[in-house]
Amino acid sequence: MYQQLVDILGQEKVSQSETQIYHHSKDESYHSPVEPDIVVFPSCKEDIVEIIRYADTNSIPIVPFGAGSGLEGQAIPIKKGISISFQNMNKVISFSPEDMIVTVQPGVTRLQLNDMINRHGLFFSVDPGADASIGGMVATNASGTSAVRYGTMRDQVLDLEVILPNGKIIHTGSLAKKSSSGYHLNGLFVGSEGTLGIFTEITLKLHGIPEAILAARCSFSTVDDCIQAAHSILLAGIPIARMELVDHISIQKVNEYSQTSYPVAPSLFFEFHGSQLGVQEEASIVEGIVSDLGSEDWVTETNSKKRALLWKARHELAYAFRHQNPNLKAGGADVCVPISKLAEVVVFARSLIDQSGMEGGVLGHVGDGNFHTILLYDQNKPKQIKEIENINDQIVNLSLSLGGTCTGEHGVGLGKIKYQQKEHGDALELMLSIKKMIDPRNIMNPGKVLPHKID
Amino acid sequence: MYQQLVDILGQEKVSQSETQIYHHSKDESYHSPVEPDIVVFPSCKEDIVEIIRYADTNSIPIVPFGAGSGLEGQAIPIKKGISISFQNMNKVISFSPEDMIVTVQPGVTRLQLNDMINRHGLFFSVDPGADASIGGMVATNASGTSAVRYGTMRDQVLDLEVILPNGKIIHTGSLAKKSSSGYHLNGLFVGSEGTLGIFTEITLKLHGIPEAILAARCSFSTVDDCIQAAHSILLAGIPIARMELVDHISIQKVNEYSQTSYPVAPSLFFEFHGSQLGVQEEASIVEGIVSDLGSEDWVTETNSKKRALLWKARHELAYAFRHQNPNLKAGGADVCVPISKLAEVVVFARSLIDQSGMEGGVLGHVGDGNFHTILLYDQNKPKQIKEIENINDQIVNLSLSLGGTCTGEHGVGLGKIKYQQKEHGDALELMLSIKKMIDPRNIMNPGKVLPHKID
Repeated sequence: MYQQLVDILGQEKVSQSETQIYHHSKDESYHSPVEPDIVVFPSCKEDIVEIIRYADTNSIPIVPFGAGSGLEGQAIPIKKGISISFQNMNKVISFSPEDMIVTVQPGVTRLQLNDMINRHGLFFSVDPGADASIGGMVATNASGTSAVRYGTMRDQVLDLEVILPNGKIIHTGSLAKKSSSGYHLNGLFVGSEGTLGIFTEITLKLHGIPEAILAARCSFSTVDDCIQAAHSILLAGIPIARMELVDHISIQKVNEYSQTSYPVAPSLFFEFHGSQLGVQEEASIVEGIVSDLGSEDWVTETNSKKRALLWKARHELAYAFRHQNPNLKAGGADVCVPISKLAEVVVFARSLIDQSGMEGGVLGHVGDGNFHTILLYDQNKPKQIKEIENINDQIVNLSLSLGGTCTGEHGVGLGKIKYQQKEHGDALELMLSIKKMIDPRNIMNPGKVLPHKID
Repeated sequence: MYQQLVDILGQEKVSQSETQIYHHSKDESYHSPVEPDIVVFPSCKEDIVEIIRYADTNSIPIVPFGAGSGLEGQAIPIKKGISISFQNMNKVISFSPEDMIVTVQPGVTRLQLNDMINRHGLFFSVDPGADASIGGMVATNASGTSAVRYGTMRDQVLDLEVILPNGKIIHTGSLAKKSSSGYHLNGLFVGSEGTLGIFTEITLKLHGIPEAILAARCSFSTVDDCIQAAHSILLAGIPIARMELVDHISIQKVNEYSQTSYPVAPSLFFEFHGSQLGVQEEASIVEGIVSDLGSEDWVTETNSKKRALLWKARHELAYAFRHQNPNLKAGGADVCVPISKLAEVVVFARSLIDQSGMEGGVLGHVGDGNFHTILLYDQNKPKQIKEIENINDQIVNLSLSLGGTCTGEHGVGLGKIKYQQKEHGDALELMLSIKKMIDPRNIMNPGKVLPHKID
């Protein structure tokens, strides 16, 4: 395999070095690493076409690898084969500030993109926290704290250039902001986690940087009150830009880690985007709502450094949990439910964590009905991993029974495959048929998204 | 066929009356009517399953028919067969004001839905003008004047219950606001124009009725200036709710028809949604932008009756054109391009109309880069129809060469099939494969969306 890929791509684009093989064996999830046979570093779409042709002819699995920041094992080559690194496909192909759109290669990262476009008064809205690659974010339909206002990756993608397993290069959309032409392939490929084709160009919508940004936070005596407040804010039609729940255990951890003195209580963190007057007005409406619901510690900031400080607790949560036990890893749930059911599921999740005796917090994108648990565990203690899986399982099953989804933004990868039948029912059969039709030899990231029937 | 369908559904759900056959032979487009063999009136999903089973077994085409307000012939049964009326599937199945979601049968119309939910402080945002059925709007990915703010139908659909040609009932989504689970089938089925399956339940996002609505209009000396203004407003990040272009000929027609005295010049019509202060502030920013670009007649209204009056010109355009010649029909283009290319295409379209000597106007959802031409023609004069087709053809070809789409919101139906290869290239092959896989006997609205290869 090594010599053949060197013949096709040139020596500098192929590696079997221990470091590269190890680096491409894992992501940031709790799933066990598996080493690829080889890592390739294409620099253009022609390279990708050649790699796919070689892999398809020889039935060798290919697994795209972005920034390695995935949380469900999407980039782990569980059937070995070829790991495709996009580190050399990190160019901006075209940028039209007047159309507020940009076309990038998949290896461009979120912060790299924002660095380039911010000076034009524009920003890319999806913020999953990590400096993920754009390709990886498309592959998992990533979202994050700002999705409540600006939507998920799927809402930003205007067009994808995709290389299919048969070597054909297709475009799934156009540069038009909306279209009713043909079947909507954008939607199908966003979130397909490398199982249907490899993206080589990605065209995204951008947004104007708001004139004013205001950050705020407040706390309540119960998580239930937090969610009630979030719910009332949405019903009032406030176009909130971010609205995050952090539970009291998480606040306590942050205080210990960052020497801060946040009130140790379930808290909401807000961001408002708009005009100077507009954000003040929205914030004052929200202040009224949270105060009617019993919150007494509303704080706001507009200065950019002070805003960052105010949000520190939210941003440093994962670090805070790991701080005291740097050898432990963090894993957790990612369900999304209708907002009227959110309190029930969050309270249930919190009680499971408490009963387990494990250290863990609950945080959530409450405006979307999406939340995560952070649970600390020791990778070498299978009992702890079992316990996390058991807790996740109960949270997912409750969420599905309430009309929700097993993953709001992390994707299916390896960890959510077992819920696909329950969540999608007979639609799963159609998904499997689409997969088989597009990738009959099952070379595209095999073992991900869909259950084993396909293998 | 009549007796068999009566046996399956009962006599009251089957009709071959002249009136019904005629009513289901056409929509509001320029495409020639074709009569179905029979019209059925299912009242529940079980009826639809039976109809599909019968049609699939006997290879009889089935064509869904909503409100008949389509503009590209989607509901015309060009291969005859069974027309499925949804007039008796017009129930609201569930409504959760606290989640801001509603589940309806496809025959519910847009105004019927809004009538029901408005009293709860909520509204359904997609407004194509006509009182279309929700099923038809999903089928064509309809949008309209408010898409610039709230998005198209595809952005509102959380879940569809679909009956496939094989009789299986699937759900394409969930009640969660976002999901990264499985392949995104919502996106595939929205806009599929009845060619992949029949929708039996549709779950939609709703929006809170804004506290304040402000309408405004102004005029410029050229269409180019109008588009430049629209462009600047978008770049300024104003979350405009509606922003419509109406050209000078259209304004003149409205003045004649409605005895109004709008300045006969290319005009922009606006709507702002938000808080009292917010809409005033946004309007004043926009007023500044349009005045810098030379507009001198900015007018605003907040009172609901006066707002309606101010927008009268935009709302009555089609009527105004047909008023003087009630025997003529109106037809036109529906392209969508990146906003930086919009002026070029609109000016080109206007010049084609002028050269043709036909009566016609240009109007557009300029915030989305989407516009229409209204051209009056006599159905009995083939030369006029040829002329319209020729003009449309040139507009579409220019739009495609600029990265746009052949249809922004009307759908493909019959009229845009000929551009599918050019717009989608090798992706069309994948669309055809999906169609063949799901509907191997080609019974679902045959002859629509995709070119003849499938037949």
